[in-house]
Amino acid sequence: MKGIVERKVTQFAGESAERTTRLDWIAVEEPLEIRVATDPVAITMRTPGDDALLALGFLLSEGIIRSIDDVGSVAHCGRPGEEGFGNVIDVTAAPGVSLDIDKVQATRRGTLTTSACGVCGRRSVDDLFAICGQVPPGPILDLHVVASATEQLRNAQHNFSQTGGVHAAAALNAQGDILAAHEDVGRHNAVDKVIGALIQRRLVSAESAIRVGNRPAIAPDSAPALLVVSGRASFEIVQKATVARIPIVASVSAPSSLAIDLAQRSGITLAGFVRHGSLNAYTHPERIAGLAR
Amino acid sequence: MKGIVERKVTQFAGESAERTTRLDWIAVEEPLEIRVATDPVAITMRTPGDDALLALGFLLSEGIIRSIDDVGSVAHCGRPGEEGFGNVIDVTAAPGVSLDIDKVQATRRGTLTTSACGVCGRRSVDDLFAICGQVPPGPILDLHVVASATEQLRNAQHNFSQTGGVHAAAALNAQGDILAAHEDVGRHNAVDKVIGALIQRRLVSAESAIRVGNRPAIAPDSAPALLVVSGRASFEIVQKATVARIPIVASVSAPSSLAIDLAQRSGITLAGFVRHGSLNAYTHPERIAGLAR
Repeated sequence: MKGIVERKVTQFAGESAERTTRLDWIAVEEPLEIRVATDPVAITMRTPGDDALLALGFLLSEGIIRSIDDVGSVAHCGRPGEEGFGNVIDVTAAPGVSLDIDKVQATRRGTLTTSACGVCGRRSVDDLFAICGQVPPGPILDLHVVASATEQLRNAQHNFSQTGGVHAAAALNAQGDILAAHEDVGRHNAVDKVIGALIQRRLVSAESAIRVGNRPAIAPDSAPALLVVSGRASFEIVQKATVARIPIVASVSAPSSLAIDLAQRSGITLAGFVRHGSLNAYTHPERIAGLAR
Repeated sequence: MKGIVERKVTQFAGESAERTTRLDWIAVEEPLEIRVATDPVAITMRTPGDDALLALGFLLSEGIIRSIDDVGSVAHCGRPGEEGFGNVIDVTAAPGVSLDIDKVQATRRGTLTTSACGVCGRRSVDDLFAICGQVPPGPILDLHVVASATEQLRNAQHNFSQTGGVHAAAALNAQGDILAAHEDVGRHNAVDKVIGALIQRRLVSAESAIRVGNRPAIAPDSAPALLVVSGRASFEIVQKATVARIPIVASVSAPSSLAIDLAQRSGITLAGFVRHGSLNAYTHPERIAGLAR
């Protein structure tokens, strides 16, 4: 089936400490760069497939095309077999039509991309790895702490219970105490607010991993060990955890393929479907006590 | 409580055709422009509150700051009471520190903004209204068609059942038949793919509302009447429906404040919590048969 791939998952069900390793179907996430007459207009993280339709719908939304009559051709750039082929799509104007991308250039151009995110998922992961390096080993958390993280998050979600319409994120220490928790209509914003709170209190920095002498720079009780998010875990969430050096990411729902690939490479423990004491560990289960490497 | 506002909702529960109008709590969505030393770096749609933390977390993720030691000040621009005050925040460097935003300028600048989206929610709505005008009245759909739209969507979600990790969107005609359905890790991408499919089949254009003579340009059976999305309804989803002239938006979960404000202004019927035959109509319930104006 299109748009899904298999990845290994270590499933841990309930308090029996029983675990099974199996293959699971994962939604594919890859960057797509949309160009108009070879000029880049936007990059979006999407599931590959029907890219031409995505480009048409996006360009209508942005006011660049008004109907199919404005469009000459829609085609992927490059050659099949090249690395990243299929992740850049070019839209040309119909004869006699001029597509004005100036109005979005200053504002929309570059949607969702970052300095670390090229047009190839593998390159995105490699680039970020080159910038950040790997998160160091440890700490090891009790399974109970990781498996109950989403319950902790739900207890901190005041606005969700009122509206049913907001995402949330929280940072926990290795004992499972909440260090910071925030809600937002955007999952990535909730994560930014949590990491911002840690930055403000000097509990996280891009150099958190660097130890002063033989001791960690941050007291263990205050050190962020786990980032928990409502909903799904995308590339962007694992990216933020990697840069902030938070070694475990737990989400209520499923991760994307690129989130798993980045977590694997950067040494992040990625847990999904963290509910009712159960969880799936997609990468580095060795940080969860009871889950042998 | 911070981050939520009250909006009127027409609640329709089950097949009894019973409806009640009441006030409901809605998550606030407003644009935030993040600047570094007055230079705009990104715009994100967020829930107001803890904006300084959001800016710090975002700038760490982007590699612009490495810790709080790089930061001089974080403050909202402008004066309290001015329109849009609180929606622009400026981060300055600490003495002796230089914050390099060049590496994100070309790629990340303008995240999530569009030509229609300024730094004030009301202005965003007004601007889009000025560009698109109002969606014309009609059609009127049976309550059953609207209330069962999310079930129709679920039946079309092949990858979700495999992964639990993808969003979906579909366009339905006034009889509730699916015209196009797509899945994606991003909700906005799924919507773009659906609208792209309609564009390709000449079933939608920015001028769909224009009638040829006295007859609609598109046969009623093929005319998109309803856009249904998994998850929540944000400003961006209603924006895409407005530009594509799809008059009804139905979502599985809650809408944001700005989604409601835009739908109200542009004449879109916005339904949320569409589940098990029930729904909440947040705007223009007159398109749902049985719900009197």
